[in-house]
Amino acid sequence: MKKIGVAILGLGVVGGGVYKVLTEHREFYQKTQELDLSVESVLEPRRDRIEALGIPEEKVAHHVAEAVLNPDVQAVVECIGGVELARQYVLAALKAGKTVVTSNKELICKYSHELERAAKAHNAGLYYEASCVGGVPVIRTLLDGLQSNEISCLMGIINGTTNYILTNMTERGVSYEEALEEAKALGYAEADPTADVEGFDATYKLSILASLAFHTKVPPVKIFREGIGGITAEDIADGEPLGYRLKLLAIGKRTHAGIEVRVHPAFIRKEHPLAGVGGNFNAVFVTGDSVGDVMLYGKGAGELPTAGAVVSDIIFAATHGEHRYSPYKNTAAPDKETTFVDDFTCAYFMRMTVNDEPGILSKITAILGRCGISIVELAQREKEKGKAKLTLITHETHERAVKSAVAKLGATDYAVVESVIRVAQ
Amino acid sequence: MKKIGVAILGLGVVGGGVYKVLTEHREFYQKTQELDLSVESVLEPRRDRIEALGIPEEKVAHHVAEAVLNPDVQAVVECIGGVELARQYVLAALKAGKTVVTSNKELICKYSHELERAAKAHNAGLYYEASCVGGVPVIRTLLDGLQSNEISCLMGIINGTTNYILTNMTERGVSYEEALEEAKALGYAEADPTADVEGFDATYKLSILASLAFHTKVPPVKIFREGIGGITAEDIADGEPLGYRLKLLAIGKRTHAGIEVRVHPAFIRKEHPLAGVGGNFNAVFVTGDSVGDVMLYGKGAGELPTAGAVVSDIIFAATHGEHRYSPYKNTAAPDKETTFVDDFTCAYFMRMTVNDEPGILSKITAILGRCGISIVELAQREKEKGKAKLTLITHETHERAVKSAVAKLGATDYAVVESVIRVAQ
Repeated sequence: MKKIGVAILGLGVVGGGVYKVLTEHREFYQKTQELDLSVESVLEPRRDRIEALGIPEEKVAHHVAEAVLNPDVQAVVECIGGVELARQYVLAALKAGKTVVTSNKELICKYSHELERAAKAHNAGLYYEASCVGGVPVIRTLLDGLQSNEISCLMGIINGTTNYILTNMTERGVSYEEALEEAKALGYAEADPTADVEGFDATYKLSILASLAFHTKVPPVKIFREGIGGITAEDIADGEPLGYRLKLLAIGKRTHAGIEVRVHPAFIRKEHPLAGVGGNFNAVFVTGDSVGDVMLYGKGAGELPTAGAVVSDIIFAATHGEHRYSPYKNTAAPDKETTFVDDFTCAYFMRMTVNDEPGILSKITAILGRCGISIVELAQREKEKGKAKLTLITHETHERAVKSAVAKLGATDYAVVESVIRVAQ
Repeated sequence: MKKIGVAILGLGVVGGGVYKVLTEHREFYQKTQELDLSVESVLEPRRDRIEALGIPEEKVAHHVAEAVLNPDVQAVVECIGGVELARQYVLAALKAGKTVVTSNKELICKYSHELERAAKAHNAGLYYEASCVGGVPVIRTLLDGLQSNEISCLMGIINGTTNYILTNMTERGVSYEEALEEAKALGYAEADPTADVEGFDATYKLSILASLAFHTKVPPVKIFREGIGGITAEDIADGEPLGYRLKLLAIGKRTHAGIEVRVHPAFIRKEHPLAGVGGNFNAVFVTGDSVGDVMLYGKGAGELPTAGAVVSDIIFAATHGEHRYSPYKNTAAPDKETTFVDDFTCAYFMRMTVNDEPGILSKITAILGRCGISIVELAQREKEKGKAKLTLITHETHERAVKSAVAKLGATDYAVVESVIRVAQ
């Protein structure tokens, strides 16, 4: 039976989970995969973590070389997080010809070109399924399941924290602040929630997924990003009668004009399979030219889902003869022939408070029309004291047209635009 | 660049689709996979099909050996359908050391043990992603994405025809007969729809998926099977107020008692991700011990989705050094240590017409109670002429208890049981 010794660098949530999955399933993998997977070395500065897992003293490395260069170690799991130290450790392991498995999305989206170059040079493996959407095998699917397809669109709910917050706001009508505090209390949001709620986490993941889907490096800086901090319970409630749910979407499209990548809150029709993805679940919806629409759904984070993805990568590397690398020229910057669309078009939802007087609709639609914006759907309801609430959905239009319309409406004395939200199509 | 010559046996819907996908994407695969995939040989008795695809004469083989033993052919695609001839052709290709890719579910679920033995003996590859759920890479996911998990449950909507019929009955209230005729007219159902509506097709697919998920051969004969022919529009309508949708489900469970495999119509709660899978879409919902719940959703059949899966297998085989075989001892019969649960428990929906008189509920619940059946939910509505309609959902119970209750109720002069449908949990 093939024996694979594993070194785990970092025993936080994911690294600890990997230790548990490997030790608890050793016999199962011997039986089903004909592989003997054993943890041979761990590197972790915190003694309490080592003790909590009951790891024998002789497995504890005192410095990275001891773990990575251990001749009994064939696979190195990087779970220390952060970028610079992780990068050095991963490079050291790759240069020693080891299989490296990481859940570090920031590392992969910023340095996969450098790491993969080192991997190829030393016949080493670089695997990162766990970096995106936890236990859902979306990277394996893009690389080895849908690789016969030209992919035109990838659309996902790929951040569990924001989906938990938005689901809570949708189902219980609570405010953003309240939902955020609750997510913090339950451990779904960090004390500093910026990376999640401002869309950075989703941007890193989209960078990785879009690079694989569109066969060219899509750096995070090319991704338009907007967080959910400005979303109110009223916005979400306004979508309901129009048939929309609000989600933080990561969207990648490839058209003849180029690649369009963006992360932002968006209304999506209730009938769309992504609309039903609630709580801390994640999903990725992919459109390929042969397969049509495919969706993968599951837990996007958490100790065991993420650890399971790490272990799946270790097994994959051990049960296939050759290492698999990116299906594109993995460089720091995109291919020269790749164009990015930054002036993208989109449908929009708008809410404004207007004077409740005859002819007001005609004035407003005239302003929108002069900006080149046409309307799909519009509803006006009376508010108090001579004011009305106007909600509308536009046809697909340019962002600059919407900005110009908002400025023009803001300059009037009869309309105040309160909310502008993109609508996914 | 690695060159892979492909032979296609059979140019029906799937085989023709494979020809199109390969020829239209040749440059794309050269660029993204560093593979030159070219169709070198086709075997097809119908001239019209060859001509419709514009296949040059020199590529047309006159007998199977000419296609399969062609030294320029590394991968053989079997799309002739049926079992016996397909089996012979596939064996011939495997014995010649070729990679065989097939979409033939009946062949795989009945002969994978023999074919895989031949593949191993000749260092050949046997791939069959296209045999289950069309373009959705569910087999790749079980083998190479969720293989770190012990899977406890696999539940799927894996037949597009029946899902189209049931969705139509649900959304438009039409009868089974009407929905079936419509499905025939649209090409979603065959002239003889038995294989689909009686659940044979789903049984073959479940046999393949459950074998992979539970690591032991699950032969079709071990699968309990019931079709959708007895379902009425009234059954479906009755589920609505109780919060259920009706689907033809393929269910595989592994518990301490053994493996339980079944295909039958079942009510499923509207909140369940499978409940929203409509039309001719398919989905497979898998529960693993690390990942939790995962769902894969997409087109389960059709020319291009299925052809795309075939081509993905060709690419997979060509881009990984070693062939991948079943993660279990692939034998004709299950392992000796495997137990199959045939006396499974389930919740049930029942509808009956009862005499609308005082004390009737007490009589009926007494009969159910004596059979060991307890009730979760019950609704009684007046019908015409002294009759009432009673619908109820039971707690989990044995099928024999339900049968006994139905017999006892049938022997009374105050109740007629009209419908008994399982409820998925």
